[in-house]
Amino acid sequence: MTSFTRADGRAPDQLRPIRITRGFTTNPAGSVLIEYGNTRVMCTASAEQGVPRFKKDSGEGWLTAEYAMLPAATHERMPRESMRGKVKGRTHEISRLVGRSLRAAIDLTLLGENTINIDCDVLQADGGTRTASITGAYIALADAIAYLTAQGVVPGNPLLPPIAAVSVGIIDGHVCLDLPYEEDSRADVDLNVIMTQEGKFVEIQGTAEHNTFSRDELNAMLDYAEKGCKELIEAQLASLGK
Amino acid sequence: MTSFTRADGRAPDQLRPIRITRGFTTNPAGSVLIEYGNTRVMCTASAEQGVPRFKKDSGEGWLTAEYAMLPAATHERMPRESMRGKVKGRTHEISRLVGRSLRAAIDLTLLGENTINIDCDVLQADGGTRTASITGAYIALADAIAYLTAQGVVPGNPLLPPIAAVSVGIIDGHVCLDLPYEEDSRADVDLNVIMTQEGKFVEIQGTAEHNTFSRDELNAMLDYAEKGCKELIEAQLASLGK
Amino acid sequence: MTSFTRADGRAPDQLRPIRITRGFTTNPAGSVLIEYGNTRVMCTASAEQGVPRFKKDSGEGWLTAEYAMLPAATHERMPRESMRGKVKGRTHEISRLVGRSLRAAIDLTLLGENTINIDCDVLQADGGTRTASITGAYIALADAIAYLTAQGVVPGNPLLPPIAAVSVGIIDGHVCLDLPYEEDSRADVDLNVIMTQEGKFVEIQGTAEHNTFSRDELNAMLDYAEKGCKELIEAQLASLGK
Amino acid sequence: MTSFTRADGRAPDQLRPIRITRGFTTNPAGSVLIEYGNTRVMCTASAEQGVPRFKKDSGEGWLTAEYAMLPAATHERMPRESMRGKVKGRTHEISRLVGRSLRAAIDLTLLGENTINIDCDVLQADGGTRTASITGAYIALADAIAYLTAQGVVPGNPLLPPIAAVSVGIIDGHVCLDLPYEEDSRADVDLNVIMTQEGKFVEIQGTAEHNTFSRDELNAMLDYAEKGCKELIEAQLASLGK
Amino acid sequence: MTSFTRADGRAPDQLRPIRITRGFTTNPAGSVLIEYGNTRVMCTASAEQGVPRFKKDSGEGWLTAEYAMLPAATHERMPRESMRGKVKGRTHEISRLVGRSLRAAIDLTLLGENTINIDCDVLQADGGTRTASITGAYIALADAIAYLTAQGVVPGNPLLPPIAAVSVGIIDGHVCLDLPYEEDSRADVDLNVIMTQEGKFVEIQGTAEHNTFSRDELNAMLDYAEKGCKELIEAQLASLGK
Amino acid sequence: MTSFTRADGRAPDQLRPIRITRGFTTNPAGSVLIEYGNTRVMCTASAEQGVPRFKKDSGEGWLTAEYAMLPAATHERMPRESMRGKVKGRTHEISRLVGRSLRAAIDLTLLGENTINIDCDVLQADGGTRTASITGAYIALADAIAYLTAQGVVPGNPLLPPIAAVSVGIIDGHVCLDLPYEEDSRADVDLNVIMTQEGKFVEIQGTAEHNTFSRDELNAMLDYAEKGCKELIEAQLASLGK
Repeated sequence: MTSFTRADGRAPDQLRPIRITRGFTTNPAGSVLIEYGNTRVMCTASAEQGVPRFKKDSGEGWLTAEYAMLPAATHERMPRESMRGKVKGRTHEISRLVGRSLRAAIDLTLLGENTINIDCDVLQADGGTRTASITGAYIALADAIAYLTAQGVVPGNPLLPPIAAVSVGIIDGHVCLDLPYEEDSRADVDLNVIMTQEGKFVEIQGTAEHNTFSRDELNAMLDYAEKGCKELIEAQLASLGK
Repeated sequence: MTSFTRADGRAPDQLRPIRITRGFTTNPAGSVLIEYGNTRVMCTASAEQGVPRFKKDSGEGWLTAEYAMLPAATHERMPRESMRGKVKGRTHEISRLVGRSLRAAIDLTLLGENTINIDCDVLQADGGTRTASITGAYIALADAIAYLTAQGVVPGNPLLPPIAAVSVGIIDGHVCLDLPYEEDSRADVDLNVIMTQEGKFVEIQGTAEHNTFSRDELNAMLDYAEKGCKELIEAQLASLGK
Repeated sequence: MTSFTRADGRAPDQLRPIRITRGFTTNPAGSVLIEYGNTRVMCTASAEQGVPRFKKDSGEGWLTAEYAMLPAATHERMPRESMRGKVKGRTHEISRLVGRSLRAAIDLTLLGENTINIDCDVLQADGGTRTASITGAYIALADAIAYLTAQGVVPGNPLLPPIAAVSVGIIDGHVCLDLPYEEDSRADVDLNVIMTQEGKFVEIQGTAEHNTFSRDELNAMLDYAEKGCKELIEAQLASLGK
Repeated sequence: MTSFTRADGRAPDQLRPIRITRGFTTNPAGSVLIEYGNTRVMCTASAEQGVPRFKKDSGEGWLTAEYAMLPAATHERMPRESMRGKVKGRTHEISRLVGRSLRAAIDLTLLGENTINIDCDVLQADGGTRTASITGAYIALADAIAYLTAQGVVPGNPLLPPIAAVSVGIIDGHVCLDLPYEEDSRADVDLNVIMTQEGKFVEIQGTAEHNTFSRDELNAMLDYAEKGCKELIEAQLASLGK
Repeated sequence: MTSFTRADGRAPDQLRPIRITRGFTTNPAGSVLIEYGNTRVMCTASAEQGVPRFKKDSGEGWLTAEYAMLPAATHERMPRESMRGKVKGRTHEISRLVGRSLRAAIDLTLLGENTINIDCDVLQADGGTRTASITGAYIALADAIAYLTAQGVVPGNPLLPPIAAVSVGIIDGHVCLDLPYEEDSRADVDLNVIMTQEGKFVEIQGTAEHNTFSRDELNAMLDYAEKGCKELIEAQLASLGK
Repeated sequence: MTSFTRADGRAPDQLRPIRITRGFTTNPAGSVLIEYGNTRVMCTASAEQGVPRFKKDSGEGWLTAEYAMLPAATHERMPRESMRGKVKGRTHEISRLVGRSLRAAIDLTLLGENTINIDCDVLQADGGTRTASITGAYIALADAIAYLTAQGVVPGNPLLPPIAAVSVGIIDGHVCLDLPYEEDSRADVDLNVIMTQEGKFVEIQGTAEHNTFSRDELNAMLDYAEKGCKELIEAQLASLGK
């Protein structure tokens, strides 16, 4: 392998600067601005009484999530999905991913028949918006649960230990952690990994964007992802004052 | 008239604290966070080459605007319009108002065949989101025009002097300037006024929410609106360093 | 000011010929054809038992309105909104205006838990369709209330005194009342005013289409609007045999 | 067969009173109000240059049609299709029927590359709205063609001899012509027939609403339909002054 | 009449080879693959408890049907209707026809408050897809009723004797039964007939695609249709082992 | 680990019976019925001239895919997406996965400016519909390419060696290959793997449905997936006569 330098000077296994701002807005039970470098996502967790029909009378709660990009978040402005009248497949896909992942961070049986709505709205996009969304949404969820518990709405303590998410890719044959847009757009492989505090996988999604990848390359990427998720969870715990 | 106190202690003709943050995000040509008290709106202006069909080969440019609320902007989370598949009448109405108003602040004949897209996304709503959107969008427009001029894309200087917008209402018989949500929801009359720097009207919209209003009451409201718009335009000019 | 002649020979403060035909169709509780010159709108008021969810168990009724143009109402045929699958912002905006205005002409607490649906369908458009809709819908509402009262469905008498609506504009520096399409399309300012019988405002909407307007100009326009609304209310009362 | 009396006193093979008002509105090239008893349909024919893509460069024209009911046309108000965001199957079906039928009354090769848009909007519904639409649309088409010819837009004379449409049904075992709503809703069989002036079929649609029907019953219905269409074509010719 | 040969060598009054495969898939209560020559339609009948709102508490059941083409069923792939977000008028029209026809083959008063959903999905289209759908759906319905009866869900025996459907057309002046796509696309007239076992009509739909048709031609077509439906009903009965 | 028996008696690393039927329908360039046990998917590949706008004048081709379930494919009938007017997130997600995967099996630079449309329609669902779709679509693609090559439409040979897809899961602590619905619905982890003939990954998607999973468990699942994909590719090659 020849020497390889990233445009922003990071080491291959180094995260971008991570910033977590709690209480970013005041109306939702939890509201967080998370930044992975220039990627900035507003993550909120709102609670409402009752559950969707398929959970009715189950005694359990539910958590659902919606992800969206503001039209001016990207370099070229994108048409607003509400005006197109259709949600893009990519948006649906990420919303479903965020919801599934966050459900791994909450014990629905202890939530009572309440629904948590996670909203992840990308204010500025520079790669890794889905991973930032998940990592940030966990903090918003934690704040919302604390609020609901303080209100006496939630019977037990449904919050599970943190989960965090990061992307890894292969660029010109080099494994790199936490890709900004410039790297993401030319990566041969793109892998998103969501992990728990104890190092178990919640979800892995690896895609050969321009080139297939071997078992060895997968393993190298997973090593980086594990390191990244650990550091992100440390940032989450620090933000929560734990 | 009996003595009357506003919940936030303001004088009847006093604006909420106004904050304007330029360069709030980096991708659009102009990006502004404007705050009227707790109301916070991200206003962006993006430029693209070409114009809609009805302006083709006119030699002129066009400006259009879209307004939206993030789902968690309000006290109770609102369903996301893209997921409902329909844009609400209120959203359409405000988008059209913002577009019309901003077109009064630009000379389209000097813009060349370019289109400016204004996006006003409400991050936190506490009354007056449409007026904050217009006032903030002017700054985003100014920054976008400066950018386009620097790029050599725009032939002349299409930016006109500032416009600003404010609401006035009648609450329990008292005229009040710049209503937060708590006042707005119980106002008898709600008037939105958009004015130019020289004190002319761009648009006035007065609605008897719970009670009709007399010509005298209209005049009293217009006096307050004029004062409010003047102060807002001073804030705009200060923000632009003029 | 130089001498100024309107294309149809009217004085600046003169309405077009107003015609009101009650009982235009027989199925709805109230059905009116209203004509402002060549503008012809069919206004109906239909009653149904029950109220929307947000009014349930309030003991009060509700009134809602929908405005639409037939595709061939305009000089150039317009695509049918049902076929486009989307309602235009302009349509939404006018429907909301008609509904708000008519709710100022009815005491919902005396309507019982019934809903009145106002439909304003423009058969032929020549400017002022929204103002004709409001003036005509009041008559349809009056007839529907009379019908419901005769049926014993409505407990009290919820009908309030008449409201009427008219447009005023500034054309080549001249204030003109009740603009037909030819004037409306080149007016610098367009003001729609909805007033009650006692001369109070229900709604005012003034827009600088091509030029901003001063406080003095606003006052001149309001004077004309007041005169126009008075005459329209006389026509309404005559039509109702009062 | 026992003696049988129709609610409106008509003979079994008698049409309702037919009224045709040409020039009902002034903007479209052809505009007709047609009445079959209490059923009233506004039929317009608008012309535009150019043809849909599948006819491009064919040298031929095209004709398309849209049918709709105003919400208050029926006894119980129906939701407006534009607000539902979906056109009902029944509406699509009738629009297609009207279009197909009218294309049998025009020689598209003589129309030049122009498109005729037929709009049939039901103002008041009392059975037979689709048949009244077709009969009325022929007159609107004739007026539009005359207008286009006078304008020099249409090279030849594309109008073919009249077509007309009528419904026949079986009620309590009795064949009846031109059913109003009260009869239509309890008919065992409903047959719609569109014929040319020379007595040929353009379309027949027979449906066993509550009971199947025999070949003999079909023949009896077709006899009545033929008589009805002849009389309708006479009314068309009289209206056109031929 | 000159001698006339069909491309596939059939006699003018001869059906294409008919194949009926019961139990084509295993999840629905009834599942049939029906083939009219190269036209292949999968027809299923699924049962669910309960009825639509307009049938609630009627003690009766309901039957509804949906028809669709797979995108690759036709020679040129057609866009998928779910992706367009709109169902085509043709699809609506056929779905309604299939539903109406099948309701003539079931006594809804004996079905209990259950709903039968018929789905007809065209795997391969070669003309006559709507008629094949109806004929095949009857078998799927019969199997579903037998299943529901065996389950003890259905109180009585709601299945009525068979119905079948076939197309007839006039090509170059010759009446032909059961048109494949090649004939259908150039037929002057297209008639679809749905009949019962005792030879009564459920529905007839005749359309002059390129030429009007006389009463004599209609009679000749109906004779062929009657012959075709008889043979189809024999095939149905054989398939059901009756 | 205790002894563990699968409901269908298969060994943990054993595929269900795989059946591939080429030429299942005749209109598309490639048409395949693939069966993984009771899961049956019709996969077609249709070719059209030209490419989407973002590929215009690139000299390259494009491949896109759509996946859908017939309403009666599942145990309980599901509403038809075209009738709902919205495509579900799951459908979008799988369509995108199929498209991405198949693009790894074709060299778009050798396809010329043509577009391949892959359609995967599930006739019967019993788990693994997305993996069966991918494996089957490769065969349809191969047949379509052969057809295009024979037609002289495609300049080079764009087909790459086979790809295949399979699911693996963890059920009660046991890793199992190729899950039917009964296993899939209670699996703790669900991993879908798409591989090339040379054993490289095209895509991996692993989801902790009810339980997170360790790196060791991931490795065990990947071993099974590799074995499964190898066998599927053998079946593909056999089907293609290679």
